[in-house]
Amino acid sequence: MELKQELSKYRDLVDKELDQYLTKEECPEQILNEAMEYSLMAGGKRIRPVLMIKVYQIFKGEIEKVMPFACAIEMIHNFSLIHDDLPGIDNDDFRHGKLTNHKRYNEATAILAGDGLLNLAYETMTKELLNSNDIENQNNKIKAINEITTATQRMIAGEYVDTEYEGKAISSDYLEYMHKNKTGALFRASARVGAMLANAKEEDLEKITKFAETIGLTFQIKDDLLSAIGDEKVLGKPVGNDEEKGKSTYVTKYGLEKAQKMLEKLTKEAVEIAETYEEKGEFLKELAIYIKIRNK
Amino acid sequence: MELKQELSKYRDLVDKELDQYLTKEECPEQILNEAMEYSLMAGGKRIRPVLMIKVYQIFKGEIEKVMPFACAIEMIHNFSLIHDDLPGIDNDDFRHGKLTNHKRYNEATAILAGDGLLNLAYETMTKELLNSNDIENQNNKIKAINEITTATQRMIAGEYVDTEYEGKAISSDYLEYMHKNKTGALFRASARVGAMLANAKEEDLEKITKFAETIGLTFQIKDDLLSAIGDEKVLGKPVGNDEEKGKSTYVTKYGLEKAQKMLEKLTKEAVEIAETYEEKGEFLKELAIYIKIRNK
Repeated sequence: MELKQELSKYRDLVDKELDQYLTKEECPEQILNEAMEYSLMAGGKRIRPVLMIKVYQIFKGEIEKVMPFACAIEMIHNFSLIHDDLPGIDNDDFRHGKLTNHKRYNEATAILAGDGLLNLAYETMTKELLNSNDIENQNNKIKAINEITTATQRMIAGEYVDTEYEGKAISSDYLEYMHKNKTGALFRASARVGAMLANAKEEDLEKITKFAETIGLTFQIKDDLLSAIGDEKVLGKPVGNDEEKGKSTYVTKYGLEKAQKMLEKLTKEAVEIAETYEEKGEFLKELAIYIKIRNK
Repeated sequence: MELKQELSKYRDLVDKELDQYLTKEECPEQILNEAMEYSLMAGGKRIRPVLMIKVYQIFKGEIEKVMPFACAIEMIHNFSLIHDDLPGIDNDDFRHGKLTNHKRYNEATAILAGDGLLNLAYETMTKELLNSNDIENQNNKIKAINEITTATQRMIAGEYVDTEYEGKAISSDYLEYMHKNKTGALFRASARVGAMLANAKEEDLEKITKFAETIGLTFQIKDDLLSAIGDEKVLGKPVGNDEEKGKSTYVTKYGLEKAQKMLEKLTKEAVEIAETYEEKGEFLKELAIYIKIRNK
């Protein structure tokens, strides 16, 4: 299996579906709608929605029913990026090689575009409940929305902890708590919602949860390793200064060798879970390996 | 009927219920939770949730089932206040006579507290769907959430139009569009959700919608009048600077006298609708009058 081709195929599917939820017509708030589109369609990797879809496909065939939820999780991810980039939080000027929302538009528009994307996610999921004619799946959909609201609250909490402790010494418990919430929660919810909507058995839901939690963690450890010893040219940002900046990362906390060992061990665990689904788990296996070996 | 006593009684009910949705325990994001509580419990009038509850009571008795939705609409209202007050939007220092959220905490916390309240509203409503044991009302609840997501998107659009046209000349069509969305949408949704959850007939839903649209408008006109000629001490914020700030309001647009006349005429229309429900409409009638005569 060519992971990159598969990722790209599903990314295109998500992009096409996302586009349908955006308002294009002329109206007094047209620029707000454009700002929402600007960030949502800025070329993200769509890892969360693709993870949701591919988990769904382990248990069920056609993906039509998972798509509104896959789009919703991507809208929520993008809402959080817009707000994180704001001058009041990370004050970043560029994202995906393009100007951040508040730099391209202005701060007021960026705040409201973020709000609009979060709310659009819920509008998208609620309309799916309202217009659905498969009543037997209604309860799984309600569970899925609940999973997403809870994960989003955790993500917001994680972002808060990140801003609060920036530049301060942080315990390994706090480091883990921050990442588990800020990045991990949405990864976890993506995978779980895929399983829930496909009506997976409790035992499978647990395995999928463990898989998602594990790759959420390896994703972060790899990020920290790249930030310490990656290739500046490939990454497009300075490397090796986390220690002097007082940043708490898995590398500054545990050292290079131990962080690398953690990454190997956890990736192996994720791969083992994926392998229990044989061919159906192929994509998840490749994804876990890709997260470990990527160079950016 | 003593409207103030009745309002105060239901406001207390809403306050008590809202408090139950807030997270109080010690945790790394404790200050974020405090910031959410700070604004949510800052002494708002709770007009939206009380409107929802009282409309519900026209058609049904016990109010237990409407409470989570009443709380959700108040959370959404407060999310919008926190974000509107931010330096990037209105840059206000005081609200309800207290420091605004970003002044009391900081900008990052205020952005995330607003996000947190919007998301908490959806968490609250979704949990109500999930834990509900009255399946026959499930569809009304889904319709209610849909009503609220749509209204919230309209509110965000209205706020955008408000910021976009600040300091610019604005047509009366745009002024109306802005208010219909910014303030009107949530008032309208509050009343409609009350009627929907009580399973009101289509004819009643239409009457209630008209009532809510009308008091949404009178509420805004009265706000603009207070902002022009109210008592600073009673209002807890500066008065009389809309003109110099280039704000488009019913007063800067139509002048004091005409705005006052519009307020009178629309209030009469709202009262007439409320009167068709005889004693059961008593509260709505008093509310319409109160909106007109209030001094804060």
